[in-house]
Amino acid sequence: MALSLRRARTIIRKTLEKGRELELKPLSVVVLDAGGHVQAFEREDGAAPGRFAIAHGKAYGAVMLGMAGTAQMQRAEGQAYFMAAVNGVYGGQVVPVPGGVLVRDKKGAVIAAIGVTGDTSDNDAAAALAAIEAVGLTGEI
Amino acid sequence: MALSLRRARTIIRKTLEKGRELELKPLSVVVLDAGGHVQAFEREDGAAPGRFAIAHGKAYGAVMLGMAGTAQMQRAEGQAYFMAAVNGVYGGQVVPVPGGVLVRDKKGAVIAAIGVTGDTSDNDAAAALAAIEAVGLTGEI
Amino acid sequence: MALSLRRARTIIRKTLEKGRELELKPLSVVVLDAGGHVQAFEREDGAAPGRFAIAHGKAYGAVMLGMAGTAQMQRAEGQAYFMAAVNGVYGGQVVPVPGGVLVRDKKGAVIAAIGVTGDTSDNDAAAALAAIEAVGLTGEI
Amino acid sequence: MALSLRRARTIIRKTLEKGRELELKPLSVVVLDAGGHVQAFEREDGAAPGRFAIAHGKAYGAVMLGMAGTAQMQRAEGQAYFMAAVNGVYGGQVVPVPGGVLVRDKKGAVIAAIGVTGDTSDNDAAAALAAIEAVGLTGEI
Repeated sequence: MALSLRRARTIIRKTLEKGRELELKPLSVVVLDAGGHVQAFEREDGAAPGRFAIAHGKAYGAVMLGMAGTAQMQRAEGQAYFMAAVNGVYGGQVVPVPGGVLVRDKKGAVIAAIGVTGDTSDNDAAAALAAIEAVGLTGEI
Repeated sequence: MALSLRRARTIIRKTLEKGRELELKPLSVVVLDAGGHVQAFEREDGAAPGRFAIAHGKAYGAVMLGMAGTAQMQRAEGQAYFMAAVNGVYGGQVVPVPGGVLVRDKKGAVIAAIGVTGDTSDNDAAAALAAIEAVGLTGEI
Repeated sequence: MALSLRRARTIIRKTLEKGRELELKPLSVVVLDAGGHVQAFEREDGAAPGRFAIAHGKAYGAVMLGMAGTAQMQRAEGQAYFMAAVNGVYGGQVVPVPGGVLVRDKKGAVIAAIGVTGDTSDNDAAAALAAIEAVGLTGEI
Repeated sequence: MALSLRRARTIIRKTLEKGRELELKPLSVVVLDAGGHVQAFEREDGAAPGRFAIAHGKAYGAVMLGMAGTAQMQRAEGQAYFMAAVNGVYGGQVVPVPGGVLVRDKKGAVIAAIGVTGDTSDNDAAAALAAIEAVGLTGEI
């Protein structure tokens, strides 16, 4: 099962709405498919120009390793050289902090990853999770 | 003047609508800001997974050089080593063919670039141009 | 739909068997999933050590662009700078010649790509195609 | 002496069988030859898409340095900047943790390296070691 563009777009909108509701700073949100490829992205007005790469890096590591941002951060804190090495083999594209959120279908298979950046990592992750649940899917932060 | 996210989103939607109207293959559309940074992107269902990089490459060269895709292609055909060298200094991120479209404001300043890929390069460019004009801006293909 | 490891393994075996039947040089065969990620690979005894990268490059371009090796070669011959630029955005990972074969399901969706190298490009592609058809799928060379 | 493809294939199968026996998560297993080049690889269904790079990184460092994963990890923990520098000269391709296992012949010469990823690093290494010993060779984890 793959996420349709329509659903990816809805997840982005709902993430941004949640950000407004929580009065977060301007957010940037990417949706990657189950192969780690960009499906949709939006950067809110007022966000810094380089936010695509951060959002992408959070989601990319999640889908490539099958490990969400929180678990990546724990691994980076406990064994920094391991996550540094992982980043080496993935071309420096991994940002191992919360805000990289796995999207699972009813059987538990990863079908996408959402990357959010702009506010604190925990708030970024919370906004994504709310959006994923709003469309009836399961998120892992 | 910068393109708002609202307007970037509208340009993407109208590009996709034009693609449906012309019965083009599934399109992927990126909007870069005047600094060459990703503002918004959507990849239609059925498009190949690697299309973000192609769309990005078309728009990136356009905004970085201030030269739309058609002019880049003419340069590549007349002086291939020059465009190869340009790609060297830009880290290989430039795809010099139509479908990289500059967006100008009323004074002629570049405020964004649209990158479209999926059908023939000429059709990609035509879909972007129609969308840019539909929101009252000037496109250069 | 994704190719199971069991089926990927069968395609590799049948490609190698076809190579023996046609008395081809030692072959190397990679199976990439629909996201361009390595699922299985085998290099026959006697093949040169660098064959993984060639097999991978043939299959990777096919799946990322949704365009099999023969079509990529035609584009490279007609518009060399375009395929060079495509290779730039994909990190130099594309080898645009026959032997990169798309695997489609009954609805026409790309579910994998096979990359074969070792003999002539045309023979490489023929061996992959025979293997794909032997497991009841459709190949595009 | 080099490992034949037949034997490499057997090591992969026995590693996966050991994983099932120990009820490990889905594994990915690569076999590199004595020059560090990919000979065979398999990724089990359900493994994350990016696992080839991790398996490869574990085996690559082992064969290039002649130092198995456990010794690399000890070096990384004691002298992190050294392993970071090693990764610099090897293009970021080294993942210095258990699961990169050297294969030695009866005279003690390195003839291959196995890279396993998917479960804990220690379990990854144990599965590889069991497979190497099952074919009558000596493994160094």
